[in-house]
Amino acid sequence: MKNKTTIGFIGLGIMGLPMALNLLKAGFRVIGYARNPQKCEEFIQSGGEWAQTPQAVGKQVEVLITIVPNSPEVKEVLFGQNGAALGLAKNTLVIDMSTISPVESLIIAEKLETQGVRMLDAPVSGGDIGAKAGTLSIMIGGDKADVQQAMPIFKAMGKQIVHIGDKSAGQACKSCNQMLIAQSLNAVSETLHYAQKIGVDGHKVREALLGGYANSRVLEIHGLKMLEKDYKPGFQAALHLKDMHIVEQACKHYGVESLATQLSQKKIEEVVKQGNGHLDNSAIHSITIEAKGVIK
Amino acid sequence: MKNKTTIGFIGLGIMGLPMALNLLKAGFRVIGYARNPQKCEEFIQSGGEWAQTPQAVGKQVEVLITIVPNSPEVKEVLFGQNGAALGLAKNTLVIDMSTISPVESLIIAEKLETQGVRMLDAPVSGGDIGAKAGTLSIMIGGDKADVQQAMPIFKAMGKQIVHIGDKSAGQACKSCNQMLIAQSLNAVSETLHYAQKIGVDGHKVREALLGGYANSRVLEIHGLKMLEKDYKPGFQAALHLKDMHIVEQACKHYGVESLATQLSQKKIEEVVKQGNGHLDNSAIHSITIEAKGVIK
Repeated sequence: MKNKTTIGFIGLGIMGLPMALNLLKAGFRVIGYARNPQKCEEFIQSGGEWAQTPQAVGKQVEVLITIVPNSPEVKEVLFGQNGAALGLAKNTLVIDMSTISPVESLIIAEKLETQGVRMLDAPVSGGDIGAKAGTLSIMIGGDKADVQQAMPIFKAMGKQIVHIGDKSAGQACKSCNQMLIAQSLNAVSETLHYAQKIGVDGHKVREALLGGYANSRVLEIHGLKMLEKDYKPGFQAALHLKDMHIVEQACKHYGVESLATQLSQKKIEEVVKQGNGHLDNSAIHSITIEAKGVIK
Repeated sequence: MKNKTTIGFIGLGIMGLPMALNLLKAGFRVIGYARNPQKCEEFIQSGGEWAQTPQAVGKQVEVLITIVPNSPEVKEVLFGQNGAALGLAKNTLVIDMSTISPVESLIIAEKLETQGVRMLDAPVSGGDIGAKAGTLSIMIGGDKADVQQAMPIFKAMGKQIVHIGDKSAGQACKSCNQMLIAQSLNAVSETLHYAQKIGVDGHKVREALLGGYANSRVLEIHGLKMLEKDYKPGFQAALHLKDMHIVEQACKHYGVESLATQLSQKKIEEVVKQGNGHLDNSAIHSITIEAKGVIK
C-alpha cells in the first residue's frame, strides 16, 4: 500500500483531528467528515478534503477510519441515513478506532462482512498528546492480512502497534487499558492527597516518585493536573465513564471481581454526577479531596 | 567533598551491596559492615574495606550510611552494643537510607543530635535494578547544607535526587512511594487477571498498554513477573508489608482514608500469611488469581 491510498476519516475530534493531520503529513489523501464542520478548518488548511455526508466519504475511499464517541455513533456513521456503508465498495477496509464494547464491535464487523467489507477494531491510548505526536499505542483486533495492509496507516499515527488477536480483541485490550488507567488515576490521586495530609510537598513527592518504581505516565501527566487542579481535557471523565461501563459489563459477563476498579469507577461517576463530565478524568482528584463518602 | 571522603556503609543486602559498589566505583573509600559477613566477598574484592563491628566502622568515617530492614535495626547498629554511634566523631554526617517510620526517623535524628552528629533520612526507590544501575530515586529529609555536602555521594547511587523537606520528610515521601506502588501492583495484577478472563493474551496486552497512558514501571517490571509467575525478589513482600504498616499508621494519625490502599495491603498481607513473605511483592498476583475472598 503506497501513501497514495485514499483514506476516509470520520470523526475529527480531540483525538481524530491530530490523527488525520498525521495521515496528511505522511502523504495520504484523506477525505474527512465530522458532525461539526467548524472543527475542520485546520484539517482542510492542511490539505484534507471534505465530504458532505459519511456516504459521500465512503464512495471515494479504499480505507475508512472511524473514531467517534461510542458504538451508537459508529453505527450511525456507518449504517444510518447517508451512512458510509451505503457508499463502500466491496473489499474496502474499515478501521474503527473508536473505543466501544467488544460485543458491539463484533456485531458491526459481521454486518459489514455481509456486504463484503472487512473491518479491524483498532482503539488507541496516549491521549491528545500521543495523537498529536503520532506516538499512540494502537491495539488491533482482526485478520493478520488486514493488519499488514493497514500497517503504513497505523505507523503514521502510532508507535506501539500491537495485533492483539481476532476481531474485537483490540477493543478487549482497550478495556484493560481503561481499567488500569482508572485504577492508576485513583492511586495517584489518593497518594497525592495522602502526601498533602501528612505534610509533604506534592510537587516534590511527584518528582521523586517519577524516578523510582512508582513511575507512571498517569503520575507524570495526570498527577501534575491534579496538583495544579487543571482539569482541562485531555480525556473527558464522561467518556472514561462510558469505557468503565464496558469494563463493568465484561466483569459481570466473565465473573471477574475487581473492587479497586469499582472504587475508581465510583469517583469517575461522581465527577459526572456533579455535572463535570466535560472535565479531564484527572478531576477525580476533586472527589478524593472532598471525600464525601463516595469511595465507600 | 572530594571522593576521598571515607564512607561507612552498614547493611550490604539486596539494595545496600550494589549501592556500596557504586560508591567504590565513584572513587570513595568505603568501610563496610553487615550482620552476615559472607555477603561481603564481592564488596571486598571490589576494593571495600571491612570492620568487625558498627562501632569500628563509626570510628573511621566522615559519613556513615545505614540501609537495614527497619527502625529497630537502625537503632541497633547505631545505639546497640558496639553500635556505630559510640565511634562517631562530633559533626559526622549519618545518612539513613533504610525505609522506616518518619516518627522513628525523627527520634533517631534527635538522639544523634545530642552527641553533635547530623543526620539525613534518604530512603530510595528503584529496586535492585536501580541500585545496580546507579539510577535510584533518592528522597531526602534534612538540612540543606547537609544535603549539599552529601550530593556527590547521592549522585554515585541515584539519578532522581530530591530534597523533599526537613528531617523525616524523606521517609514521609517514601511512604507515599510505597503506598502508590502497592496500589499500582494491585491495579496491574487485577488488570492482567481481567485480560486473561476475557480471553486476550496478557503479554500482548502488557506490550500495548506500555505504549499508552497506562504505562508504568510496575506494569513493565512487575507485570512481566506476574505473567511469568516469577516471584524471585526484587523487593520482598514482607518488607513491603512493613512499609504498608507505616502508611497505615500515618493514615490513622492524619485521618486519611484510602480504601484502594487497604485492598492492596490485604493482598500483600495474604502473601505473607501464606508463608511467602520472602517472595517478590509481585506475588500478590497469586492472591488475585486465587480470589479467596481476601480482597473483600
